[in-house]
Amino acid sequence: MIVSIVGVGLMGGSIAIDLKELGFSNQVIGVDLSQDNLDKAIRRKIIDKALPLKEAIQQSSLIILATPVNVLSQLIPEVLDLVEDQIVFDLGSSKVEILNTVTGHSRRGNMVSLHPMAGTEFSGPEAAIPRLYQDKVCVVVDQENSSSQALDLAKKMLNCLKMKPVFYNAEEHDLHVAYVSHISHISSFSLALTVLAKEENEKRIFDLASGGFSSTVRLAKSNPNMWVPIFEQNRDNVLDVLEEHIISLGKFRTLLLEKDFKGLEKLINQSNEIKRILG
Amino acid sequence: MIVSIVGVGLMGGSIAIDLKELGFSNQVIGVDLSQDNLDKAIRRKIIDKALPLKEAIQQSSLIILATPVNVLSQLIPEVLDLVEDQIVFDLGSSKVEILNTVTGHSRRGNMVSLHPMAGTEFSGPEAAIPRLYQDKVCVVVDQENSSSQALDLAKKMLNCLKMKPVFYNAEEHDLHVAYVSHISHISSFSLALTVLAKEENEKRIFDLASGGFSSTVRLAKSNPNMWVPIFEQNRDNVLDVLEEHIISLGKFRTLLLEKDFKGLEKLINQSNEIKRILG
Repeated sequence: MIVSIVGVGLMGGSIAIDLKELGFSNQVIGVDLSQDNLDKAIRRKIIDKALPLKEAIQQSSLIILATPVNVLSQLIPEVLDLVEDQIVFDLGSSKVEILNTVTGHSRRGNMVSLHPMAGTEFSGPEAAIPRLYQDKVCVVVDQENSSSQALDLAKKMLNCLKMKPVFYNAEEHDLHVAYVSHISHISSFSLALTVLAKEENEKRIFDLASGGFSSTVRLAKSNPNMWVPIFEQNRDNVLDVLEEHIISLGKFRTLLLEKDFKGLEKLINQSNEIKRILG
Repeated sequence: MIVSIVGVGLMGGSIAIDLKELGFSNQVIGVDLSQDNLDKAIRRKIIDKALPLKEAIQQSSLIILATPVNVLSQLIPEVLDLVEDQIVFDLGSSKVEILNTVTGHSRRGNMVSLHPMAGTEFSGPEAAIPRLYQDKVCVVVDQENSSSQALDLAKKMLNCLKMKPVFYNAEEHDLHVAYVSHISHISSFSLALTVLAKEENEKRIFDLASGGFSSTVRLAKSNPNMWVPIFEQNRDNVLDVLEEHIISLGKFRTLLLEKDFKGLEKLINQSNEIKRILG
């Protein structure tokens, strides 16, 4: 199967590698606004060739859209206007706004909206790695709006990538990813800023980073070109959970101010509950 | 060399394993208030035998204190009262308060105060692992209060564990670990509480945890018996950096409320600066 990947970065590049190596696709065409990204992807043999969007769509059976979500809002209707019987997957991290752009579109059934819960803090085709998706969850969003043929292909691809599908509608998706994924990024960005603000001596940060800091702050290396559009499109849900996070940090502050160490112990015991869920 | 480890948990147990395996010690004696911990440590061959504190000190050349810091405040003066020419290391995560208990003690020179910047979110002898300390930084605190003989032994042990020593005084230590390590734990505890509060459906957390959540929240599994005494002893510094963290999250909130996405991009770019330090 000939597959086009639009947006040859971390996500698109990694899926391209796997689809070729795992035998799902015999040819991968790359589409990207950045000629530099395309050159890198060809040099690393992530894609077989680069084409403009329209030609890529004409030559492919499957088109995977892996751009930032602000681009997806423009791109999804444009691509659905161009497809005939091709199947389209998007990999957006927020869904309500991008899917609203094609409500009632005559080709909406050709598309399956996917959110693979996988990634790293790096970006660009140089960050693409094999098996990024293996053993991870992939959210399949608004599946009832996809044709059974398109859904079957999505399930076949997820199976090939060894991903576990779960099924949410778009509103549920955006709510829960804000609560679980997006807030982790805000928290990490904020923690990095905090430590950079307090620590004038960068060597001290480097010395002490293995005391838990480097894992909590890993996500703070993430690219704003990906994340600002996500926060923009999922603003209300993100604000909601961010306010809860500020309240929760405020509880720790109050207990410390009042030297209520029994209360602090109780609060930490509550947060330890996360073990029960994450193991 | 016969070494006693007081507190046979994650830190003490892991150091016991390495000191034996790397040939630094031919016999490790375990001391612990919990008979259950001692039984586990003997069963896993982490220690060779268990003794009460006084006998353990009499039979050892080196005593390593690896208990929570509230216990260290009691234990350090008690141990220094009992030693003759034995060397003592403590591994406490906060230093000013525990070291104040032995200012001017006639055996203060026998002791070196160490803080290995290593650990996991687990605890107890069952969490002890080989090479926990390898390639990590160890802070050597108030080195001028230790005899050259005691310091030499500390450096020899750090060398054996393949740790990199850095030298801070107690006030610097407590300030910088609050800024870099302790705040990461508060942030992680708070993030876990936030998500537990917002997510009624635990399965959703489990589904979506690989989207960055599990790494930022890893530290939220940490044991309150270790951490509450640290926050108690280092309260002022922790409060200081916690207030900065709340202010920083507030900036993200304001920008989202005002839909200032250019400002948000600028803030994320600032937090990306952490890459320059952590690589």
